[in-house]
Amino acid sequence: MTDPTDAPDDAFHIFDTTLRDGAQREGINLTVADKLTIARHLDDFGVGFIEGGWPGANPRDTEFFRRAGEEIAFRHARLVAFGATRRAGTRAEDDPQVAALLDSGAPVVTLVAKSHDRHVELALRTTLEENLAMVRDTVAHLRAHGRRVFVDCEHFFDGYRANAGYALRVVRAAHEAGADVVVLCDTNGGMLPAHVGAVVGEVLAATGARLGIHAQDDTGCAVANTLAAVDAGATHVQCTANGYGERVGNANLFPVVAALELKYDRRVLPPGRLAEATRVSHAIAEVVNLTPSTHQPYVGVSAFAHKAGLHASAIKVDPDLYQHIDPERVGNTMRMLVSDMAGRASVELKGRELGIDLGGDRELVGRVVERVKEREAQGYTYEAADASFELLLRAEVTGRPLRYFRVESWRAIVEDRPDGTHANEATVKLWAKGERIVATAEGNGPVNALDRALRVALERIYPELAALELTDYKVRILEGSLGTGSITRVLVSTSDERGEWSTVGVAENVIAASWQALDDAYAYGLWRAGVEPQAD
Amino acid sequence: MTDPTDAPDDAFHIFDTTLRDGAQREGINLTVADKLTIARHLDDFGVGFIEGGWPGANPRDTEFFRRAGEEIAFRHARLVAFGATRRAGTRAEDDPQVAALLDSGAPVVTLVAKSHDRHVELALRTTLEENLAMVRDTVAHLRAHGRRVFVDCEHFFDGYRANAGYALRVVRAAHEAGADVVVLCDTNGGMLPAHVGAVVGEVLAATGARLGIHAQDDTGCAVANTLAAVDAGATHVQCTANGYGERVGNANLFPVVAALELKYDRRVLPPGRLAEATRVSHAIAEVVNLTPSTHQPYVGVSAFAHKAGLHASAIKVDPDLYQHIDPERVGNTMRMLVSDMAGRASVELKGRELGIDLGGDRELVGRVVERVKEREAQGYTYEAADASFELLLRAEVTGRPLRYFRVESWRAIVEDRPDGTHANEATVKLWAKGERIVATAEGNGPVNALDRALRVALERIYPELAALELTDYKVRILEGSLGTGSITRVLVSTSDERGEWSTVGVAENVIAASWQALDDAYAYGLWRAGVEPQAD
Repeated sequence: MTDPTDAPDDAFHIFDTTLRDGAQREGINLTVADKLTIARHLDDFGVGFIEGGWPGANPRDTEFFRRAGEEIAFRHARLVAFGATRRAGTRAEDDPQVAALLDSGAPVVTLVAKSHDRHVELALRTTLEENLAMVRDTVAHLRAHGRRVFVDCEHFFDGYRANAGYALRVVRAAHEAGADVVVLCDTNGGMLPAHVGAVVGEVLAATGARLGIHAQDDTGCAVANTLAAVDAGATHVQCTANGYGERVGNANLFPVVAALELKYDRRVLPPGRLAEATRVSHAIAEVVNLTPSTHQPYVGVSAFAHKAGLHASAIKVDPDLYQHIDPERVGNTMRMLVSDMAGRASVELKGRELGIDLGGDRELVGRVVERVKEREAQGYTYEAADASFELLLRAEVTGRPLRYFRVESWRAIVEDRPDGTHANEATVKLWAKGERIVATAEGNGPVNALDRALRVALERIYPELAALELTDYKVRILEGSLGTGSITRVLVSTSDERGEWSTVGVAENVIAASWQALDDAYAYGLWRAGVEPQAD
Repeated sequence: MTDPTDAPDDAFHIFDTTLRDGAQREGINLTVADKLTIARHLDDFGVGFIEGGWPGANPRDTEFFRRAGEEIAFRHARLVAFGATRRAGTRAEDDPQVAALLDSGAPVVTLVAKSHDRHVELALRTTLEENLAMVRDTVAHLRAHGRRVFVDCEHFFDGYRANAGYALRVVRAAHEAGADVVVLCDTNGGMLPAHVGAVVGEVLAATGARLGIHAQDDTGCAVANTLAAVDAGATHVQCTANGYGERVGNANLFPVVAALELKYDRRVLPPGRLAEATRVSHAIAEVVNLTPSTHQPYVGVSAFAHKAGLHASAIKVDPDLYQHIDPERVGNTMRMLVSDMAGRASVELKGRELGIDLGGDRELVGRVVERVKEREAQGYTYEAADASFELLLRAEVTGRPLRYFRVESWRAIVEDRPDGTHANEATVKLWAKGERIVATAEGNGPVNALDRALRVALERIYPELAALELTDYKVRILEGSLGTGSITRVLVSTSDERGEWSTVGVAENVIAASWQALDDAYAYGLWRAGVEPQAD
């Protein structure tokens, strides 16, 4: 694995553990493909380290490290493998768990070590001296194999309160054996900032080790605890995207990074990346299939939303009177009314990103903003459906939708038979290049059957479709308005040899919404392949 | 209005502003009845002050004060009316807005005052001297009418940074005119704890006024900012239930109170009330019609949920090793999440939680673990599907599944018609209590049609089904193994009058997976309702 091409300044580390500790959150269950996607987002955002998981502990994490090494050309981040110190009474070189850390190929390893005397005795069931030897041996072994090593001192703050002398010995053992950073962990999350700051200051003075902080959010103070540790001299902060993590969660990457850059005036990301915070936060939420928290600091859709009234006119005089930062610095926008996320600026930026310059045409941008607002009010979301947004934008620019076929009708049937097997059959009736085509296909589900029927109908006319593959499919039920029942939103990811794109469909039922997303996915795929659209 | 019968110690105030500032949250729209219900919950919880709204500013708030005075016999709380200082260039006694505060009958009034010089000039459009006179006059007028007065210094921290001298003059004006507490407000929410603590300390030293803190959560530090102010000498804290409030929100009442009682060992609620925190939090969420945040500190359903298998065995040894407080102190419970990271220990703990003691039967626990592993390998997940896990567990314990009907076959059809409308129809054929039933129904989607057909088929035999409602529905596509295509996982949430439960279905297609989750949802719902299962 090669070094990232554009790693941030090593004097201060932003260490992301979404893929390891974040995955402990209730309701998150990541596939290898999910982990690779999140790693790309985090690298793109510019964190310095990405902890990918525990190689050897489960096949999924082992595979992640293999594929990340092969498939991702990291620009900013270094990949980190997580594992434990060697077992009591063995040698580090004989411990298969330690070997798996080396086998992962990750250039950096985080070792979790016990630093609370009671945990050593009750949970680890070994002696205090042997625990120190485990730390020393494992760090030295990994260092001897050229790895950079960080040591997470689990339950450090509780341990320091119970037996400060022993907790400090663990820090010194790690530091002296060659650990680059010793991370003080508030594993149970029960600490408050004043105490965290005091302890970090004392440990720094007593050991001289480079210190990091890992804060859980059980008191609602994880961000503040992280900043208190930085105030006291910690130069390595562990966070997770959107604060995902066990129980209440971990210190949230976005407010921590925003505070450091905007309040401390400390550059911790590559230039310009902080303005991607909102997009990255929402994209990761989509990958883990959790609704992005609307009230997350800095990046939530409500973070700069003002209810009209008292503030409205004053905001018009001077927005800075009523917001603590310019929302554009974190890629967010001020909103005076409910619902829409799209402002003129973001549409223009998005257009520029797609190579469509809208700067000169105020009327066109206004039309796109209106169209997005209208669609978002219906339940569409474009943050996670770039391809559908691009189709919408290009339709407004050219004055006609990118169409390759016109559907007359379709039908899907799912049947559960007495023998327990299922039959899934779909029929589509459509027009393409002046020809009416009727096709039927079976599939492993109704959406798959529709997908196949569409391919059967179109493959002769558009052989380019053979290269398209449906790679992900997500469904979310949105609350209906005025008691009309719920609305279904489907996000589909599709790939060809060169990349992947996402499309969205919204309808009162899952099959109809899937159909819309498929329709966009095919249109976008054909457009990418350079096929000329048809007049409607 | 009489004094509460059992008011908490006046030396430290818990001041709740859910009904005034909390109602600024996007998506909250409170009726008078809602406000009365929330006020009862807050009084029951034991806060010292309840800010009810701005009488005179809108008819709803005026009516709330009238009805609260008549209908609620407060036990702990005093009701507070919120309003502004008199208009520039008038007399307090001539200002109808000030008169409305007296008319409200509330024994306490909070006045909002400008303390930032730029806001006085730009937003209030008056002179700095006149603003001071407005504070003095209005406080004195309300004091002369027997009201206790708190003064909220809006934008205090920004104002203090811009012009500390003027900000301090506002504090002194309020204090000298007879305000009981001067509240320093971080209105834009941009502050961090170290700064808040320093400023509160300076203001206290400079003025000798009793100080309060009002923190917004825009940096994710509202709880920590509140505690930093307390550390520096503030003895009045403003909070909202569940942190509701404008933009990101306000300091959350529950973690603030829990930190004060459990971490500071300071009694701020009447005895025994903290253990009601979880119930009160969820009850208020229901009233405002927002899903309770699962990851809220202390009171969220995930706040004491453990996933990692690593921890589960240690938790059995000593739960205190892995939680910062006993969850019962805030009325919450520890939950073990069953997942592929877990093993025997978490199954046993989970069984205990459900009231099924598995401790003695190693063979049974082993069987359950095997069954869970086998199902999770197929794509099932039980950590988000408690009810499906309980059905599985009870089936293993009793030796037979909890069944109420036996399905012969079913069929769902979705048709997109040339006019753009959709038809969704489902047919089920099943046996229940010895009877064969065939039923067909339409729905707004195929799953809804199946749900309805099932109800049509069963409602005569099981009238208890009428109380069940499908409340959430999530779909996830899992990667297939060995190229056999993808697998679909559906999670369904269902509720009756007493609560909600989740079930899971996994199949090669979304309709079949939904069917399984519905099947479990109905079985669990009937079991909860006390209906006797049928022999298969």
